[in-house]
Amino acid sequence: MTETLRELLAAGQPIRAVGAHDGLSALLVQAAGFEAVWAGGLCISTAHGVPDAGILTMTEFHADAVRMRRAVDIPIIADVDAGFGDVNVVRRMAQLYESSGIDAVCIEDKQYPKRNSFRNGHRLEDPEVFAQKIHVMKSVQTTPDFLVIARLESLIAGGTVDEAIDRADLYCRAGADAVLIHSRQRTPDEVGEFCAGFRQLGHVVPVFVVPTTYYSADVDRLSALGAAGMIYANQIMRGAVTAMKDVLESLAATGSTAEMESTITTVDDLFQLVDTDSLHGNEPWHGLSKIS
Amino acid sequence: MTETLRELLAAGQPIRAVGAHDGLSALLVQAAGFEAVWAGGLCISTAHGVPDAGILTMTEFHADAVRMRRAVDIPIIADVDAGFGDVNVVRRMAQLYESSGIDAVCIEDKQYPKRNSFRNGHRLEDPEVFAQKIHVMKSVQTTPDFLVIARLESLIAGGTVDEAIDRADLYCRAGADAVLIHSRQRTPDEVGEFCAGFRQLGHVVPVFVVPTTYYSADVDRLSALGAAGMIYANQIMRGAVTAMKDVLESLAATGSTAEMESTITTVDDLFQLVDTDSLHGNEPWHGLSKIS
Amino acid sequence: MTETLRELLAAGQPIRAVGAHDGLSALLVQAAGFEAVWAGGLCISTAHGVPDAGILTMTEFHADAVRMRRAVDIPIIADVDAGFGDVNVVRRMAQLYESSGIDAVCIEDKQYPKRNSFRNGHRLEDPEVFAQKIHVMKSVQTTPDFLVIARLESLIAGGTVDEAIDRADLYCRAGADAVLIHSRQRTPDEVGEFCAGFRQLGHVVPVFVVPTTYYSADVDRLSALGAAGMIYANQIMRGAVTAMKDVLESLAATGSTAEMESTITTVDDLFQLVDTDSLHGNEPWHGLSKIS
Amino acid sequence: MTETLRELLAAGQPIRAVGAHDGLSALLVQAAGFEAVWAGGLCISTAHGVPDAGILTMTEFHADAVRMRRAVDIPIIADVDAGFGDVNVVRRMAQLYESSGIDAVCIEDKQYPKRNSFRNGHRLEDPEVFAQKIHVMKSVQTTPDFLVIARLESLIAGGTVDEAIDRADLYCRAGADAVLIHSRQRTPDEVGEFCAGFRQLGHVVPVFVVPTTYYSADVDRLSALGAAGMIYANQIMRGAVTAMKDVLESLAATGSTAEMESTITTVDDLFQLVDTDSLHGNEPWHGLSKIS
Repeated sequence: MTETLRELLAAGQPIRAVGAHDGLSALLVQAAGFEAVWAGGLCISTAHGVPDAGILTMTEFHADAVRMRRAVDIPIIADVDAGFGDVNVVRRMAQLYESSGIDAVCIEDKQYPKRNSFRNGHRLEDPEVFAQKIHVMKSVQTTPDFLVIARLESLIAGGTVDEAIDRADLYCRAGADAVLIHSRQRTPDEVGEFCAGFRQLGHVVPVFVVPTTYYSADVDRLSALGAAGMIYANQIMRGAVTAMKDVLESLAATGSTAEMESTITTVDDLFQLVDTDSLHGNEPWHGLSKIS
Repeated sequence: MTETLRELLAAGQPIRAVGAHDGLSALLVQAAGFEAVWAGGLCISTAHGVPDAGILTMTEFHADAVRMRRAVDIPIIADVDAGFGDVNVVRRMAQLYESSGIDAVCIEDKQYPKRNSFRNGHRLEDPEVFAQKIHVMKSVQTTPDFLVIARLESLIAGGTVDEAIDRADLYCRAGADAVLIHSRQRTPDEVGEFCAGFRQLGHVVPVFVVPTTYYSADVDRLSALGAAGMIYANQIMRGAVTAMKDVLESLAATGSTAEMESTITTVDDLFQLVDTDSLHGNEPWHGLSKIS
Repeated sequence: MTETLRELLAAGQPIRAVGAHDGLSALLVQAAGFEAVWAGGLCISTAHGVPDAGILTMTEFHADAVRMRRAVDIPIIADVDAGFGDVNVVRRMAQLYESSGIDAVCIEDKQYPKRNSFRNGHRLEDPEVFAQKIHVMKSVQTTPDFLVIARLESLIAGGTVDEAIDRADLYCRAGADAVLIHSRQRTPDEVGEFCAGFRQLGHVVPVFVVPTTYYSADVDRLSALGAAGMIYANQIMRGAVTAMKDVLESLAATGSTAEMESTITTVDDLFQLVDTDSLHGNEPWHGLSKIS
Repeated sequence: MTETLRELLAAGQPIRAVGAHDGLSALLVQAAGFEAVWAGGLCISTAHGVPDAGILTMTEFHADAVRMRRAVDIPIIADVDAGFGDVNVVRRMAQLYESSGIDAVCIEDKQYPKRNSFRNGHRLEDPEVFAQKIHVMKSVQTTPDFLVIARLESLIAGGTVDEAIDRADLYCRAGADAVLIHSRQRTPDEVGEFCAGFRQLGHVVPVFVVPTTYYSADVDRLSALGAAGMIYANQIMRGAVTAMKDVLESLAATGSTAEMESTITTVDDLFQLVDTDSLHGNEPWHGLSKIS
């Protein structure tokens, strides 16, 4: 039985959550030994071919998170943007994700509709309104292990570390099981500063970080700074895009796939990735003698 | 306005259809200049993390083809396996795909449930039953450009080229707009033999081929053998899997993404692929003066 | 071939659009000879068992409108609330509905998230913002017959008829193909006043009305007041609820369905409603002789 | 906390499961005090406007069962026809339904594709093949309360009671948690004969019956014959159809809904059925003082 995200966090090891966008990429994350899958808005939107700007509906994000849920056993953390609507929408959203076996949802304190954090136009949500959303999400929870991660966009929106800490404090008192501090600096200094200040308030909830821009900081360094979890949100999709472009370029140039055959995964490997050999059907059924 | 698949075929240029599995991969196929997207069962199933063995429902295959339809303008050819059921199911299937703007469906003459063509366990459908399915699909068509491609599995199932030609003849008389001759030889000899024999019967409908195993034959060679279209069914997914594994392996080994940053597509490139700059919202609306 | 909504409106006969909530109720509307189906937010939400308060996503509303589209041939007018998001979301929404064969969408000039018009808490959208949404919807249209109906909530929100006319004027200049004037008075006086004032501005676009509260005014009276279309939004669902309650009460009280058998539709009638006899399968297929 | 279907069956009271087709009808079943909802193929297909003949996919049936699941707390028994495919499809189907919180699936021993039991063209599945499906469904179960009900079509297909008992015996040994004996006689005699004979073999699993044609037999009589559960599969839809036709006929004849207003449920009742007053949003949020 796979450990739940809550158990993994309690055990104290770093949670390396890798962003996936479908069942296959989630399977690869699991096969490579990572602790969790990040079902992120940027990658799911991009996989649909649409900008990460609140274009897809909650139904679409949820369906793709469920697709990953069906493919892997390790925990899945779902990015739910700003929650897709008002507090009533957020309540339903939490119920849908929890009842689908998603381990955690990560909701950010921005106003709907969203803009991707790496683009301009951020508007932070009123802290009390956001705290109410967290409170409502926790109050409708029916299973013990479901987590609500409150994502702090203060630093992206130009706020100070202290402002982020104040919000984190409020969100935790409203029931957040963890926080995610977002930063787009090239170094992890401000996230480290956040972790230190947040701990001084006596909070013990885990802190997640997203080392997209401060990628030089490795897991050990981020752990030392106080991060319990690291989200590698989009790297495997970015690697995949490069590779798909290479395949297409080679095919266009040479008129065949002969040159690339030795460098790309085989069809048989695809079959094995999705456990084709586990299918029934080729072998005869031996009837109840086999059951007993 | 993008040309329809029927127009492209009429123009006589080779149709290079590349297999995609979501909106992003379809966008890359289009951006690289290929003529069409192949929404194939193997890649869609694998993207879900399930074997290509009739596991996904028609609804799931259709939804993913529609996802590609929304992402690109070039023609989409949808693999519909053996049609997902009896003639009534096939009729509804054709209506759904046509009404969703899919340019062509490719239906194979195997019995339901399917087994992937590269695995064992093939059972061909009765030719008359299959011909009836084609006839029904064409009889409910409401737009001029929708195509039904009849996929011949005879050679995969151990039959002869003559048997495949007999079936192709029947299917065309039942209304098929094109045929696809499937082969898993290492050379295109038997597909060439098929094309020659099929033409002798006087049929002018296009023939599609799938050079997965006879990948050394390039577009020119396949065209010379009589193929109007070539389906590169799974190569970009296979390239993507290799790349995703590499990213995961590097991250697991080094604890960061620093080493790979220079080799993977940037986040800004992802934004551009899905046309993020086309979004409204940052600029002010200038009101009706702008409209007029 | 069924006439399009645009053709029906051009012909000048009253368009009686009846609210349905699934394929069956849409089929009944068509069978009874009405001109169009109203795929309304209240009934679809209620059919899901959730309040009509922006809880369902665009994907869910769209899927149910598509379900009706597949069931009937007559025009479908889809209620799209306030458009489900910002102008980018609205643009995608219009494309999805149009490409699915929905004849018209009706978008209301309230802010997201919505509250049902018969409950409190209305906030009107800024007129210029709403005009931009209409303009964008029309600018991405690809087929000639798709209509955008601008729904005016001014009277519900406590505004005057003149304010509603000013907004209607703006929306029409932004491209609206029709307007819907919403009122919850017990008489159609204010909608009549609206129609008269709106015509004085020289607009010829059709006006729709929703006689839920002023139900005493019949089609002739509403036509005389200037309405081109009447939406009977929720009456068949309300009748169905009464009947379902009666069946349940009788079953609970008597322990069997014996008493009600003579008053409820037969199973055979259900079969006929969905055209079961049109299925292939019982009869043999006569092969190509039948085709030729 | 609502009791599970397993608990209700263990308690020995008759399980009156009433067929619903959406969230609203399921809510009405629950509100009327019935023990369970039957998410039946006939009503779901009819609600889509398609014949009950294997036309809808598993995804579509599952989505509608989930829609009911979200609307009510009482147990839901989902009709899964013949399982939608081979043993691999059946395995995935069972996992999907169980993971969605559906309490039981009812699978029938007919071959795919199905024909509705009240029409011709029945082909029974090979008993060993069907037993394997049951075995596989039970072997992938992860929660204690999920039930597999094996539906016996022998009597519909012209077989004897003894043949049905033999199959029931086999299915129970393969793991079935309950059986459903289907009959279309006008009296419950043959289902009573089945129950008696089945009990003589020592099986204690519950037997479900479907008194559609032998509707004169009430709950007490069916219980006395040995039935633990009674499925009222389609009566509320049949009542709803009659009522919807009446509303449409009156509207068409009179041109208004004035005459029917006193006989149909009010709009306010619709609001209350879906618990609109439970929504947050009108009241102010009192902040953390309220949380603490």
